[in-house]
Amino acid sequence: MSVDFDVAVIGGGPGGYIAAIRAAQLGMKTVCIDDWKIDGKPALGGTCTNVGCIPSKALLEASAHYEMARDGLSNFGVDVIGVDMDIPRMQMRRASIVRQNNDGIAFLFRKNKITYFNGTGSFAGVENGEYTIAVTGDETRKFTCTNVIIATGSKPRAWPNLPFDEERVLSNAGVLSLNDVPKSFAIIGAGVVGLEMGSVWRRLGSDVTLFESQPELLAGADRQVAMEAQKQLTRQGLTILTGATVRKVRRMPKGVAIEYDDARGQVEKAVFDKLLVSIGRVPYTQGLGVDKVGLKLDERGFVAVDGLCRTNLKNVWAIGDVVRGPMLAHKAEDEGVAVAERIAGKYGHVDYKGIPWVVYTHPEIAWVGRTEEELVAENVSFKKGVFPFMANGRARTMGTTEGFVKILADAKTDEVLGVHMIGPMVSELIAEAVMAMTFSATSEDIARICHAHPTLSEAVKEAALAVDGRALNM
Amino acid sequence: MSVDFDVAVIGGGPGGYIAAIRAAQLGMKTVCIDDWKIDGKPALGGTCTNVGCIPSKALLEASAHYEMARDGLSNFGVDVIGVDMDIPRMQMRRASIVRQNNDGIAFLFRKNKITYFNGTGSFAGVENGEYTIAVTGDETRKFTCTNVIIATGSKPRAWPNLPFDEERVLSNAGVLSLNDVPKSFAIIGAGVVGLEMGSVWRRLGSDVTLFESQPELLAGADRQVAMEAQKQLTRQGLTILTGATVRKVRRMPKGVAIEYDDARGQVEKAVFDKLLVSIGRVPYTQGLGVDKVGLKLDERGFVAVDGLCRTNLKNVWAIGDVVRGPMLAHKAEDEGVAVAERIAGKYGHVDYKGIPWVVYTHPEIAWVGRTEEELVAENVSFKKGVFPFMANGRARTMGTTEGFVKILADAKTDEVLGVHMIGPMVSELIAEAVMAMTFSATSEDIARICHAHPTLSEAVKEAALAVDGRALNM
Repeated sequence: MSVDFDVAVIGGGPGGYIAAIRAAQLGMKTVCIDDWKIDGKPALGGTCTNVGCIPSKALLEASAHYEMARDGLSNFGVDVIGVDMDIPRMQMRRASIVRQNNDGIAFLFRKNKITYFNGTGSFAGVENGEYTIAVTGDETRKFTCTNVIIATGSKPRAWPNLPFDEERVLSNAGVLSLNDVPKSFAIIGAGVVGLEMGSVWRRLGSDVTLFESQPELLAGADRQVAMEAQKQLTRQGLTILTGATVRKVRRMPKGVAIEYDDARGQVEKAVFDKLLVSIGRVPYTQGLGVDKVGLKLDERGFVAVDGLCRTNLKNVWAIGDVVRGPMLAHKAEDEGVAVAERIAGKYGHVDYKGIPWVVYTHPEIAWVGRTEEELVAENVSFKKGVFPFMANGRARTMGTTEGFVKILADAKTDEVLGVHMIGPMVSELIAEAVMAMTFSATSEDIARICHAHPTLSEAVKEAALAVDGRALNM
Repeated sequence: MSVDFDVAVIGGGPGGYIAAIRAAQLGMKTVCIDDWKIDGKPALGGTCTNVGCIPSKALLEASAHYEMARDGLSNFGVDVIGVDMDIPRMQMRRASIVRQNNDGIAFLFRKNKITYFNGTGSFAGVENGEYTIAVTGDETRKFTCTNVIIATGSKPRAWPNLPFDEERVLSNAGVLSLNDVPKSFAIIGAGVVGLEMGSVWRRLGSDVTLFESQPELLAGADRQVAMEAQKQLTRQGLTILTGATVRKVRRMPKGVAIEYDDARGQVEKAVFDKLLVSIGRVPYTQGLGVDKVGLKLDERGFVAVDGLCRTNLKNVWAIGDVVRGPMLAHKAEDEGVAVAERIAGKYGHVDYKGIPWVVYTHPEIAWVGRTEEELVAENVSFKKGVFPFMANGRARTMGTTEGFVKILADAKTDEVLGVHMIGPMVSELIAEAVMAMTFSATSEDIARICHAHPTLSEAVKEAALAVDGRALNM
């Protein structure tokens, strides 16, 4: 008896849907199972599309326009008498962009002849190397397949004994769909989600306080960048309490009470209208039927995989947030493509050293490679070049001159080891740095390559020149 | 007797000032002569800083904000009442950014111990390999030097028998300093300057008509990009008359009358409040004392140089707009650095194949390498990958989904031969393409390299995938 599918992908987020498309492109009969629904309608794209990357950028964009129109245009000569924000309309736009992406993926599935089941996919058994997958949901079914790609993603970590109610205690999902601006807004965790969502609601009028237990914000980022971010975001009006240990969180009739030790150990109390808990995410394997087939998880609950995304089970692979490594959509995508290619007998490639990070605050933050602190810890001898956007012509014309580009290069070989940026549009500038590092570029290479004038990317070139002490415009 | 300077740079535009800084960094005693003044004050930076790249971007930025505030925010949920444009305030900002750049260069000169004379520099003679340079202007002086770098730039080409009065008949300088919005605005030449300035004044309320003698706009750009630009700019309200031959231009008491043959050869007449003539630029060698030393110019009036920017005179070099090659600030800068390094006995490097072009319209346009038409003309067998921003997640969240990225790669080797873009922020996305091409990247390389999600740069990756017929999100 032949199997129903060559490849079953469980999860339709950026890792899963891309894996399914690549598998189908390679001629494999492919099915993808995903249980996400919005307003009762199947909603492919996972956390990224539904309650992550895409809707957060929609709100960041809208709130930035609002703030600009309200406060930022006068200097350009643009006079505005009255500015008002229609939150429900902003949310309609967000929802419509999400729906456009959902439907776009469904279209790609049809185009690539991928079977799609909206429901929860789980292992039902394995026999002679054939996996049986059960789908439960609106309709129930079972099918067999040869290869399985687990791409079930992650879910937000809740505060102990404080489940998300998405009304007062919000996760990344709830914080995206508020239809009113909370007067006061607490955020536990000053990481990517906390800083982005804090920025959105501050711009829209909330009084935002971030509680960060670490002595500094944005763990993982280069410290010089993190310090600049703290300075800029604080200047914008975010209250960022670093070194603050939240002791108790209590849901109140109309808000949330927080008791915390401030950085000096002083016990403090405060009450807020809303609370966003953004203290990281945990792998999502619930309902996957791990025990049915003996799939091995690691001690932190991730599906255990090797460097090629192979699990302990033959022909079962896992990618994205549900396995080790950064919980980033593009890391999941690259793993998805690589695994599909490996299943097809090709060489699949993921360059884990070349995965960029982006934070969509204003100024934006982006980096790739190792931080200064990591190089110091690893005893790597390095040179450093920093160039401020203040000295960049285009940044001046845009009126956004905060931040800098910093390039770290090996002291002996000059190979670029890390590029760290905070400033305008650095989310896009980082692509050049990833390209350069992938080709093992030296700082000299970047410095010698023509950069269009006047562009922000000239700051990358100047930072490379600065590594050798010969920046031209500084 | 020792010479006064090792290096004299004539011209303080982007080529000249950068050459002077690099020469000084390399330990040479350097002088720069530049005659630009604004409001009686020395204004280093040449055309680029004073009446080119920088002020044009300041106006593009301001006018884009105005248009966005007036028409573009409702969809984001931002309601704006009473949007008005204060042109003089916009112009004050433009002037202040220019002044900031002028003063920034003067500061860099002091920091690098570069002598700076505000006046016209010219060859006064040469003896025993020592050049005498005369400076005329507010104060007169002479000095000797061993090496000369000519960086006198270019000036706008005027319409025959119609000198620029900068009141009704404008050059790139006059069009930047208008303090009122002309009701009707004619532009001869739909190249970079014409399209950028046409966009600025259209946004601010002018009825803009562009006359382009060629059958299509933006000569030099890939045709697919140019056609998309024409479509988008026309949709925005620019009237672009391609294939229109201007026959007569007459200054009227209150405007300018234009008689032209339209694309079908029909004679037409129209009167406009203002006219911008943007039909290219000519090298500027006036007052340079070419004859005093026998400096050779080519038949088009450029200083004749070889591939290393050497003129016919020993130790006399020329760079930037006054020599062959594209009239782009970053090309001039790269030549300036290379020449300073050659004078210092080092290896100077300019990669003429890797010089990007940028047009700051909306959508922006950028390219590097060869166009599809050039490859066809050269009988190069190539593959093509195109990816539309309409299918890019970040473009959707920004609400600017016009345009595409197109990658051309060698059919046999897959090496990228050209990258052509029209779309949001492609001025910054082009840096990645230049980096890739400099490293002789294949389309496969770009496709394999991790691109952050959600970024516009993912469209570059997808276009690279499309070269091989395996775009993921299309």
